[in-house]
Amino acid sequence: MASYERSLEEQGLLIVLSGPSGVGKNSIIDALREEDPGRFHSVSMTTRPPRKDEQEGVSYYFTNKLHFEELIRKDKILEYDSYCGEYYGTPREPIERMTGQNVDILLDLTVKGALELKRNCPNAVIVFVTASTEEALRERLMNRGTESEDAIDKRLETAREEMTKIDLFDYWVINDLISEAANDVSAIIRAEKRRTLRFFVDECDL
Amino acid sequence: MASYERSLEEQGLLIVLSGPSGVGKNSIIDALREEDPGRFHSVSMTTRPPRKDEQEGVSYYFTNKLHFEELIRKDKILEYDSYCGEYYGTPREPIERMTGQNVDILLDLTVKGALELKRNCPNAVIVFVTASTEEALRERLMNRGTESEDAIDKRLETAREEMTKIDLFDYWVINDLISEAANDVSAIIRAEKRRTLRFFVDECDL
Repeated sequence: MASYERSLEEQGLLIVLSGPSGVGKNSIIDALREEDPGRFHSVSMTTRPPRKDEQEGVSYYFTNKLHFEELIRKDKILEYDSYCGEYYGTPREPIERMTGQNVDILLDLTVKGALELKRNCPNAVIVFVTASTEEALRERLMNRGTESEDAIDKRLETAREEMTKIDLFDYWVINDLISEAANDVSAIIRAEKRRTLRFFVDECDL
Repeated sequence: MASYERSLEEQGLLIVLSGPSGVGKNSIIDALREEDPGRFHSVSMTTRPPRKDEQEGVSYYFTNKLHFEELIRKDKILEYDSYCGEYYGTPREPIERMTGQNVDILLDLTVKGALELKRNCPNAVIVFVTASTEEALRERLMNRGTESEDAIDKRLETAREEMTKIDLFDYWVINDLISEAANDVSAIIRAEKRRTLRFFVDECDL
């Protein structure tokens, strides 16, 4: 029988924002952090060397390729990709440790990375962020003023491809107004913590 | 392919609070209505005669037994029970009409009623409300001062039985502080409206 007290064994949530580049995922994360800076941790591992201002376990966990590949083989990396010859990924251990201590972890991952992580952690919550229309996304990319029209067209084509994956995600948030999108993500986190499923799953499911 | 605009076809949500009697479901509903009185509608049908101050379609939809039984046979009642020889139930038609007009419907149902409704409307969101402990529920019932200790013991026994059904519910909300419980329910409603599943289901699923 379910005990009333069962609910008190609370676990942190692993929540992932994903979606087309330029859609404002980082602005949402910044808005959430502003409300409560201690609320979220983000945890990634990379094999690229740390920059001057980067601290171990804050910006990234830094390691070498040999060790990263060993972690992949031992199923200790939840998702990863390589970029410019260096690995970037999400290590399992710090996530299990922190969620076990009721700390929420908020990650910004590629669509491929988010889906890979969801396969490894069915209890992770993956959120797809889009603009309300393709035109809105184009405007956003143009306003950044950092890319040619050709490069923007290519990004929009990638975005269209990524949109076909949306039904594999748990939630769909529209980022027209950052504060509204951040409130949506806050509500998702609060609601997910009350889902009965979370009280009746094995811990190893994360 | 999913269109960016897909999200704009918004539907109202059918949300049900259930759980042991005395747990404060009505206080939560009152708190939610206070925030925004036009936000929720509740819709029930009964065969008992209207009282003086009751208006058709506000307190209840009033009808006779012959008609109620015809609606049951035609699968137009989503859940029902009888009490003191009169039927009380949730009719399908006004719910489909109002959720189609993007109106949220909030119902307070028995545990049996909530589960019956969920079988008929898989897209309904059913929330189990409890006190944090059995002792807290006992105190709450004692503070009402309307029942004998024997009657309270019986209610607590029923509550224990009902708690075994909690894993059939979508969410579990603890009502220690009404404002917190109401905020949980608000977050659940906001989050549910962003679930990708809701954008990719047939309308007839409600």
